[in-house]
Amino acid sequence: MITDQKRILSKEADLHSYAFDGSFGYYLPERVVQPINSDEVIDIVKLANQYLVPIYPRGQATCLSGGPLPVDGGIVIDMVKMDQKLEIDSENLIAIVSPGVITASIQKAALEKGYFYPPDPSSAHVSTIGGNVAENSGGPRGLKYGITGDYVIGLEVVTPEGKLIRTGGQTIKNVTGYNLTKLIVGSEGTLGIVTEITLRLIPKPKKSVSLMAVFDQLVDSGASISTILSSGILPAAMEIMDQSCIQAVENFKPSGYPTDAAAIVLIELDGHPVAIEDEIKEVATICKQLHARTVKVATTEEERGKLWEARKLVSPAITKIKPTKISEDATVPRSQIPRMFERLIEIREKYAIDLVVFGHAGDGNLHPNILADKRDQEEMRRVEDAVTEIFEAAIELGGTLSGEHGIGTMKAPYMEKELGIDGLEMMKRVKEAWDPNNIMNPKKIFPTPGVSKLVLTDD
Amino acid sequence: MITDQKRILSKEADLHSYAFDGSFGYYLPERVVQPINSDEVIDIVKLANQYLVPIYPRGQATCLSGGPLPVDGGIVIDMVKMDQKLEIDSENLIAIVSPGVITASIQKAALEKGYFYPPDPSSAHVSTIGGNVAENSGGPRGLKYGITGDYVIGLEVVTPEGKLIRTGGQTIKNVTGYNLTKLIVGSEGTLGIVTEITLRLIPKPKKSVSLMAVFDQLVDSGASISTILSSGILPAAMEIMDQSCIQAVENFKPSGYPTDAAAIVLIELDGHPVAIEDEIKEVATICKQLHARTVKVATTEEERGKLWEARKLVSPAITKIKPTKISEDATVPRSQIPRMFERLIEIREKYAIDLVVFGHAGDGNLHPNILADKRDQEEMRRVEDAVTEIFEAAIELGGTLSGEHGIGTMKAPYMEKELGIDGLEMMKRVKEAWDPNNIMNPKKIFPTPGVSKLVLTDD
Ligand SMILES: Cc1cc2nc3c(=O)[nH]c(=O)nc-3n(C[C@H](O)[C@H](O)[C@H](O)COP(=O)(O)OP(=O)(O)OC[C@H]3O[C@@H](n4cnc5c(N)ncnc54)[C@H](O)[C@@H]3O)c2cc1C
Ligand SMILES: Cc1cc2nc3c(=O)[nH]c(=O)nc-3n(C[C@H](O)[C@H](O)[C@H](O)COP(=O)(O)OP(=O)(O)OC[C@H]3O[C@@H](n4cnc5c(N)ncnc54)[C@H](O)[C@@H]3O)c2cc1C
Repeated sequence: MITDQKRILSKEADLHSYAFDGSFGYYLPERVVQPINSDEVIDIVKLANQYLVPIYPRGQATCLSGGPLPVDGGIVIDMVKMDQKLEIDSENLIAIVSPGVITASIQKAALEKGYFYPPDPSSAHVSTIGGNVAENSGGPRGLKYGITGDYVIGLEVVTPEGKLIRTGGQTIKNVTGYNLTKLIVGSEGTLGIVTEITLRLIPKPKKSVSLMAVFDQLVDSGASISTILSSGILPAAMEIMDQSCIQAVENFKPSGYPTDAAAIVLIELDGHPVAIEDEIKEVATICKQLHARTVKVATTEEERGKLWEARKLVSPAITKIKPTKISEDATVPRSQIPRMFERLIEIREKYAIDLVVFGHAGDGNLHPNILADKRDQEEMRRVEDAVTEIFEAAIELGGTLSGEHGIGTMKAPYMEKELGIDGLEMMKRVKEAWDPNNIMNPKKIFPTPGVSKLVLTDD
Repeated sequence: MITDQKRILSKEADLHSYAFDGSFGYYLPERVVQPINSDEVIDIVKLANQYLVPIYPRGQATCLSGGPLPVDGGIVIDMVKMDQKLEIDSENLIAIVSPGVITASIQKAALEKGYFYPPDPSSAHVSTIGGNVAENSGGPRGLKYGITGDYVIGLEVVTPEGKLIRTGGQTIKNVTGYNLTKLIVGSEGTLGIVTEITLRLIPKPKKSVSLMAVFDQLVDSGASISTILSSGILPAAMEIMDQSCIQAVENFKPSGYPTDAAAIVLIELDGHPVAIEDEIKEVATICKQLHARTVKVATTEEERGKLWEARKLVSPAITKIKPTKISEDATVPRSQIPRMFERLIEIREKYAIDLVVFGHAGDGNLHPNILADKRDQEEMRRVEDAVTEIFEAAIELGGTLSGEHGIGTMKAPYMEKELGIDGLEMMKRVKEAWDPNNIMNPKKIFPTPGVSKLVLTDD
């Protein structure tokens, strides 16, 4: 049991720091505990399971879907103090880390030894690896390198009944029984608390080059993306920003971005220096043939940083539009990106909302962000309907509710739309079998009966 | 229901064709059905679930761990006639296939359009993609490209109660709820019958080059493998054959392989032509510095074919040693490969067995194969003990029972050794929640109480 009283918080002032995440909603927990090792986690979970108290694992609360919110009161288990271990094992090209370690520290530690940990959610400098694992977080490099789950090869987990299990291991290949590792990755803290993570690393790419192409027509930017991919080139990243997004960035910090352009596409290539020299030429040619207004290539670290600055500024820039941001990450098969853009523009007009679109175009993972003011209840009602229609569009186009931000509370009402009753039922069976008392992060992922859409209004 | 009587087999002569797989053991089913679509599968499963009849999905029965064996009688569901669909979707870089399609046909169809489906179990020309998915099959390219499961992004599955569900979809990124796709991949036909598979493809590498290095000391071959990987090069494949294996191949078909060498390492590099030219030089230098007796480079298709011939001949060659082959695929962290080789040599001597070792050295996935004669019961008892000791060695060295061949009946007795009671219990809960009547491929993966080791003898 935690004996250090400093790591058990119950003053109201403290509790308020644990009532929110990066999404919408505010719920006070009754207590916050800050374990520093697996034994403490086991003790807390066992007690909670015995007394049927809901528990909510929490990393840095950057979640955009409501994952760590203590919606039913109970105990928040703050994992950030459990950050002791960050081992890079060069011989086996793996990293063994504690869940509270910040993702960027792992990337840095790997790079220092010449290795590469590719997953790079834009929140890498603030989010924990435990949160990344629970959300199966993505980022721009998903296209070529995959996402968090593709690098997790082993886990230590405290089950909802307080048992310590190890899944997977230190080998890349492991088919011993069911893949519990991949089941727990992305389970959003509903199946157990991750207390240690083994990550696969890869050799560092020898060189990276970036390219920015500016398009006057959205359809040309889409065609460029498909053509590049079918030419045999697999870029490390391919990001898109639409006009509203370019304008927001330029308003936020004037840097000369073309506010009249329909889209900017940012492409990163990495690999052998000679190979990418060839590839960058090919990519530039494709963009130009598809009517890119300008194509800019950046080879030095500094030039690359500048090119990516616009993309990095998107998050702070758009929150200047209006205070309440509802971030979605509806994802469609790549060929449907142009159609999804059209649908999003229709939805923007239909509901008269502030909607900007950017995202990871190479893998169909768009980020439609709605900016609103939650004090304006009439506007929020329009936003509720717009969100529902965004999900419907994604599903109709063969896509999914979430490419990387998870379901949490925000998308739970739409689960049956995508999965059907039977698909959802098979997920529920896993949850019920693992957490018979439903104490582990309740009301996440699974819809609350009777609630069929997102509610952002108070009435 | 299946109305075509030709696809319902019950004559004893026919049943014998479904009594075995690529491992050990012979069990007659009571009936074999050959569905050609999901509806027929649903009907069969529903009936079986209603009348509590065990059912066993089966592909081409090349399984090396007993997966498709009808150990409790009942119905074998032969999936090979369900092979209608093989679509390559160029725009989305995916393939949508029926479970009975032969893996090599998918590789070929992808290549014809300029794409690459990397997973390549050595059985690719005979095994079905449904079997590959159920086993999460690997192969030499696992090191750089990952294994079957890394390419499966969507599934259609008939659950053990006859419900049709779809998991995942057509997008690479999808974090909507639990990752049922990855749960079903590798579940060895115990959680449902896969009726359609969506696979991710990647651009075809521009060029491939192979290299063969011959070593006088096992330890030097191990050191070369680690040094190459930590130099920043990620080969497409790195295969090793030990002396007993080289000798078996040379006896089978004399081709001038050095039977006095301790090990042969085969390396494949692929990517941009200029890049791999550089890399092959670096790899050759490393091998020579680490005392390789000879290093041979093959750049043309024909030369590469010749180099890989030895590796391809291993399977037929070793079965000439003795008629009964027990294939293991105990996998260890890469740094433990030299130690695992030592342990295997000790085990070979201790039990006086015919043991040859080859495998995917780059990812620690060795294939110790024991050759014996099942009519010799005394020998088989020694083999039983040797197998147990191989598993114990792998687990002690931080490895796993199976890197790619699955658990089936052959490794089930050892599951608790690796996973512990609690780890195994969490797997069991999934099975029980999904298949409450335990009709779907019973007695696979999970140990039978009281059976703590592999039994190869009759008494
Ligand atoms: C500016 C910004 C940019 C972002 N960019 C991206 C992006 O590019 N790609 C992307 O995928 N996401 C992105 N996100 C979303 C978010 O950063 C990720 O989901 C991240 O993984 C959350 O990590 P965290 O430590 O903040 O976890 P939290 O938000 O605290 O928790 C997230 C979930 O994980 C669970 N959890 C946390 N720790 C554990 C544990 N140890 N064991 C079990 N469950 C646990 C919680 O219960 C919760 O359900 C972004 C967010 C922001 C604010
Ligand atoms: C010479 C040889 C070389 C091999 N090389 C490799 C290798 O390099 N790498 C490797 O990983 N394996 C290898 N194997 C093992 C074997 O080929 C693979 O496990 C393969 O995936 C089995 O496919 P199959 O169609 O033969 O399936 P089967 O053997 O018929 O069945 C395998 C399992 O899958 C289940 N199953 C089959 N179809 C379905 C379905 N549609 N839905 C649900 N469950 C299903 C069965 O119940 C069974 O449990 C090799 C085997 C041989 C004989």
